[in-house]
Amino acid sequence: MSVYLHDIPLPDAKARLQSALEDAGLWRVLGAETIPLDEHAIGRVLAEPVWAKVSSPHYHASAMDGFAVRAADTVGAQPSTPVTFSLLPSHSPQAVYLDTGDALPEGFDAVIPIENVESLGPDGNLTSVLRQPSSVRIRAAVTPWSHVRPLGEDIVATQLVLPAGQALRPVDLGAAAAAGHRTVRVARRPRVAILPTGSELVPIGSDPSTALRQAQGGSSGQRLKPGDILEYNSLVLAAQIKAWGGEPTRFPITPDDFDAICARVQEAARDHDLILLNAGSSAGAEDFSAGVVEKLGTLLVHGVAVRPGHPVILGVIRNRVEGNKELGDKESGNKESGNKGLGEQETQLPNYLIPNPWIPIIGVPGYPVSAALTGEIFVEPLLARWTGRRPLEHPVAQARLTRKITSPAGDDDYVRVAVGEVGGKLLAAPLARGAGVISSLVRADGIVVLPRGVQGAEAGETVDVRLYRSRAELERTIFCIGSHDMTLDLLAQFLAQHDRRLASANVGSQAGLVALKRGEAHLAGSHLLDPETGEYNVAYLAQYLPGVPVRLMALVGREQGLLVKRGNPKGVKSLGDLSRQGVRFVNRQRGAGTRLLLDYHLSKMGISAESIQGYNQEEYTHLGVAAAVASGRADCGLGIAAAAQALDLDFVPLFQERYDLVIPKIHAESSLLAPLFEVVASAEFREAVGRMPGYDVTVMGKIIVEA
Amino acid sequence: MSVYLHDIPLPDAKARLQSALEDAGLWRVLGAETIPLDEHAIGRVLAEPVWAKVSSPHYHASAMDGFAVRAADTVGAQPSTPVTFSLLPSHSPQAVYLDTGDALPEGFDAVIPIENVESLGPDGNLTSVLRQPSSVRIRAAVTPWSHVRPLGEDIVATQLVLPAGQALRPVDLGAAAAAGHRTVRVARRPRVAILPTGSELVPIGSDPSTALRQAQGGSSGQRLKPGDILEYNSLVLAAQIKAWGGEPTRFPITPDDFDAICARVQEAARDHDLILLNAGSSAGAEDFSAGVVEKLGTLLVHGVAVRPGHPVILGVIRNRVEGNKELGDKESGNKESGNKGLGEQETQLPNYLIPNPWIPIIGVPGYPVSAALTGEIFVEPLLARWTGRRPLEHPVAQARLTRKITSPAGDDDYVRVAVGEVGGKLLAAPLARGAGVISSLVRADGIVVLPRGVQGAEAGETVDVRLYRSRAELERTIFCIGSHDMTLDLLAQFLAQHDRRLASANVGSQAGLVALKRGEAHLAGSHLLDPETGEYNVAYLAQYLPGVPVRLMALVGREQGLLVKRGNPKGVKSLGDLSRQGVRFVNRQRGAGTRLLLDYHLSKMGISAESIQGYNQEEYTHLGVAAAVASGRADCGLGIAAAAQALDLDFVPLFQERYDLVIPKIHAESSLLAPLFEVVASAEFREAVGRMPGYDVTVMGKIIVEA
Repeated sequence: MSVYLHDIPLPDAKARLQSALEDAGLWRVLGAETIPLDEHAIGRVLAEPVWAKVSSPHYHASAMDGFAVRAADTVGAQPSTPVTFSLLPSHSPQAVYLDTGDALPEGFDAVIPIENVESLGPDGNLTSVLRQPSSVRIRAAVTPWSHVRPLGEDIVATQLVLPAGQALRPVDLGAAAAAGHRTVRVARRPRVAILPTGSELVPIGSDPSTALRQAQGGSSGQRLKPGDILEYNSLVLAAQIKAWGGEPTRFPITPDDFDAICARVQEAARDHDLILLNAGSSAGAEDFSAGVVEKLGTLLVHGVAVRPGHPVILGVIRNRVEGNKELGDKESGNKESGNKGLGEQETQLPNYLIPNPWIPIIGVPGYPVSAALTGEIFVEPLLARWTGRRPLEHPVAQARLTRKITSPAGDDDYVRVAVGEVGGKLLAAPLARGAGVISSLVRADGIVVLPRGVQGAEAGETVDVRLYRSRAELERTIFCIGSHDMTLDLLAQFLAQHDRRLASANVGSQAGLVALKRGEAHLAGSHLLDPETGEYNVAYLAQYLPGVPVRLMALVGREQGLLVKRGNPKGVKSLGDLSRQGVRFVNRQRGAGTRLLLDYHLSKMGISAESIQGYNQEEYTHLGVAAAVASGRADCGLGIAAAAQALDLDFVPLFQERYDLVIPKIHAESSLLAPLFEVVASAEFREAVGRMPGYDVTVMGKIIVEA
Repeated sequence: MSVYLHDIPLPDAKARLQSALEDAGLWRVLGAETIPLDEHAIGRVLAEPVWAKVSSPHYHASAMDGFAVRAADTVGAQPSTPVTFSLLPSHSPQAVYLDTGDALPEGFDAVIPIENVESLGPDGNLTSVLRQPSSVRIRAAVTPWSHVRPLGEDIVATQLVLPAGQALRPVDLGAAAAAGHRTVRVARRPRVAILPTGSELVPIGSDPSTALRQAQGGSSGQRLKPGDILEYNSLVLAAQIKAWGGEPTRFPITPDDFDAICARVQEAARDHDLILLNAGSSAGAEDFSAGVVEKLGTLLVHGVAVRPGHPVILGVIRNRVEGNKELGDKESGNKESGNKGLGEQETQLPNYLIPNPWIPIIGVPGYPVSAALTGEIFVEPLLARWTGRRPLEHPVAQARLTRKITSPAGDDDYVRVAVGEVGGKLLAAPLARGAGVISSLVRADGIVVLPRGVQGAEAGETVDVRLYRSRAELERTIFCIGSHDMTLDLLAQFLAQHDRRLASANVGSQAGLVALKRGEAHLAGSHLLDPETGEYNVAYLAQYLPGVPVRLMALVGREQGLLVKRGNPKGVKSLGDLSRQGVRFVNRQRGAGTRLLLDYHLSKMGISAESIQGYNQEEYTHLGVAAAVASGRADCGLGIAAAAQALDLDFVPLFQERYDLVIPKIHAESSLLAPLFEVVASAEFREAVGRMPGYDVTVMGKIIVEA
């Protein structure tokens, strides 16, 4: 078992796959099918151009409600010398009433809008157009073809209406219909098999905690054990494939068994165009993917120099032809689908009778971020090629990095970033790097790619960001930094209903003020205790934001206390107990308000940091501390009651503190932040926060400093 | 019957609709339903936030393939002083092998990657990791929690995972699954009824010409008569609604009958949230929509000051409750769907049992461009509101107008424009203004809105364009102007396969050279005859493009001749016949190469323009001329053979001419145009053009001038 992958550069890896597909005759539109021209056709990609079969309009049409005349007869009509047109006798009238769209009668060559005529009755006197007039009078001449839509004004027979490769939009459907079509020839959707493998995988919905199961009443799946992994990569991959114009098939989970995986791959090969094998693409004891591909076909690539996601496998496997009968049955509904690529001669054989002798297979890494990026990097361009559309591309913008990034020189490094516009500058804040952190992809507003050979980027450097969101969306984003409080999650939810996005980075109170000073956020959450005065935050404004006019607004009062396991097994009652033998503590990082609070009270009580086991074990959020205690990694930590409740812990209240929002005036008075103050002032929000344990909302919205 | 509409400003119209919906309690998310977390959930809009039910990971997981140890045991390990960990006995080992994702055994707090250990056999000697080692040796200490993914690293129970109002993306589905969900609560899709009305309407696919029907072998629909109108607005509206997250229902065509329309509207009202009545929204003899709305409910607006599309009707009608039983049956599959708006209490009643007492109805104008814009202006924002997502917004860019636009001061004028980047400048070329010209929407790259009070914009003025295409797409667009030739349609098709869009504006050869000089196109098609030399185009370069280095490339040689009805009823054989009594001619516009060719030969033959009936009747393309002849509007016109064939006309060949492409060198040498020269050089293109009648491809690609 080789424990090392031979990572090759991304372009080489793509080139190898492409040339293998070219050899197999698969680097083209896979096939075409004829579909009816209805709303389900949107998004489908034309496999052939649409040429006009007919002209539109196919006759000379009146462009208005009015009267058809011969332009020549109107010559000389003037306000002083009107000209009258008889509508009778009906077999040879001088004028004929037409509704918009009616055909111009033979011999007539112009239309006079109804509002420009005087209607006359049989007696020759003015009459209301409500009653059928017997003649009409005009006081202005008209030129030939005025208010007429001539034949072919919109579309002329034989002209190109839509080119092949066009993804159909609503108006395209209308144009094709106007051109005389009622079906269109589109690329068939590539069929992609997604094969989750791994004995540790369990289906989503399985519930990791009976407590939670009872509480939520929800998902009845089996109990998760430590080491069980929820299998949702196949869900993400299937959704990607559907979004990219493919037809995904999610197979059941296959255990880590070489023969079972081989059998599953061959089963999938029968009626799919591409196989995604997830995971087992690395080089661990139970990573069978490479071996499976080698056995069933050709291993092209094992390991690509991209992060995250380098243990990618690319290969092609032989298709077993006996599979196709079965496929034929399956597909028999779809007689339209042919094996016709662009420009080729149409073949009479439905394409499921002409199996591809080779089928590409991609070994997708197991970490969710790696899996999703593998989809974007390798699968999307392939689906584009197979359907004849262009690969998707994200708009690129330049932004300033808020933090240094270090990056392995040998890889293309895909760094997820949150992007926000602060004071007219576009900022990119790197998010968690872990390949296991799918929430970082959810929060990502874009991707910064640090190419091979680049070792990283400095804070303040300008980088290109591939944006996942529109500029307009980013302009609605409120960038919040600093200390974390669960109220911010609620705030984000309420702001979403006020057309704002709250992107928050949790770096602790002091780092938040520093970032604010650097102009890298709109506001910061802070609960910094001043040991001198016992007051919160005020003293630190002068220190960290000298000369910056700031609005300091109280958000909540909250209890700080010790988070301990249910029943408080170690009997921790006060900070004094932290230095007791066998009590393992978990701390917050330097600069965190909670850390300051701790140090403040420890020094008052004369307790030394050294005497506390785990004092140097740092977590970055209250929930991180709670998770450490819940998992048994520590016996206790200092934090807020809500965090204790979140993970079903006991809470030993110790101190009351205030959590404020620090907002530079320039932002506080911007329309961007206006909804934030509305929300904070609203009863709904106040009540929602009040429902969380340990929160005091009486101070909410109080302006502490306005300078 | 009032023949005038009372157009009101767009914002007022929208405000009236909104307040009526607020009164009816319909200005909110219509309802929510629970759907499984699978690939079909993408694009659905969350009706409720997703909070984490569980943490991810829910245990301390190994981040690598390697060996779990106690970090404390590794202290002092150095290259010179390795530390050995026994894997035995299995009930109390010092180290334990873990695959990536395995749970850290109780008491262990770090993982050492497999590549950093030496495996020892029972004899204590080095062994291959291929065989199960009995102990491992390390030469470096590790810190606690290294290569471990602690509980909650990705998601911590109770945190906000996704806010309400979020349109679900693939990674969002993964995050929701990781957070312990297997269903999500999303806004139900608003049901929209589309009611085509009009006795003149016929279903799409109906065939306007038996000749074409035989030729194409296609659509078997009944024969179209003059005055019949293909009904495809319902197709475009349905596709828009589907794309915007609604559920469209297309009703059969209802004839122009007041009672029939009333009945159809009431039928639709039973199980839909919105009714689109198309058309009859104007004020003509058979425009019943306003009357229908007044009879069944309240007419809020009749006429909005927007162009195209001002005859819009907005109203609300009463729902008839007896309809709901039926609906209940229909919907019984969908027990999940509730009538729950954001933040409201969940009701136990499925929402189809709580019909809206009022239902909005929109009278959509009949012209296809008006109908499509009415969808964008009124329907899309409503569907956004009803599903809780943001209204769509197009990116806005600034571009330079290539032509003057005049605009009615009283209206918001929606001007369709082609957009291209020429020499670094973004250009907006106004397209056909006609509300009946759906091809103008297909070709539109964006919309320029000239607001009320603005009378127009000058050529060269900078305007805001709402872009329908990405900047990247526009950067791939080749802007071609000048004379029209059918070869350009084929060229566009071939270029589409080479990742280029060809946008061509047909203004005639001379106007094309003028536009080129102004830097408003990449190339121009031209066939300007020099009466002195009998040579094409060369002489005009000096005249129109002085000092501009240009590549002049021959595209095709083609026959010019007279287009006449089949059998040439008027017996037109030469230009001499044009002045004959009773022969109606149709001309090309001034500046067109064909016009020059005509004048050249007329003067040589001593025939005066005045002697030709219809000399001043101008068409802008060859196909326009052919259409005029085919429709009987004229007996003959000068044009190319392909145009004659297009409309099944006879062709009387008269002259041979050359059609060239004029390309400023700066563009000719750009990578943007490189594919154009590839295509022109390719055998496929040459053959495709050669298949068209009257074309000589021997000159194709020949460089006439390179200076």
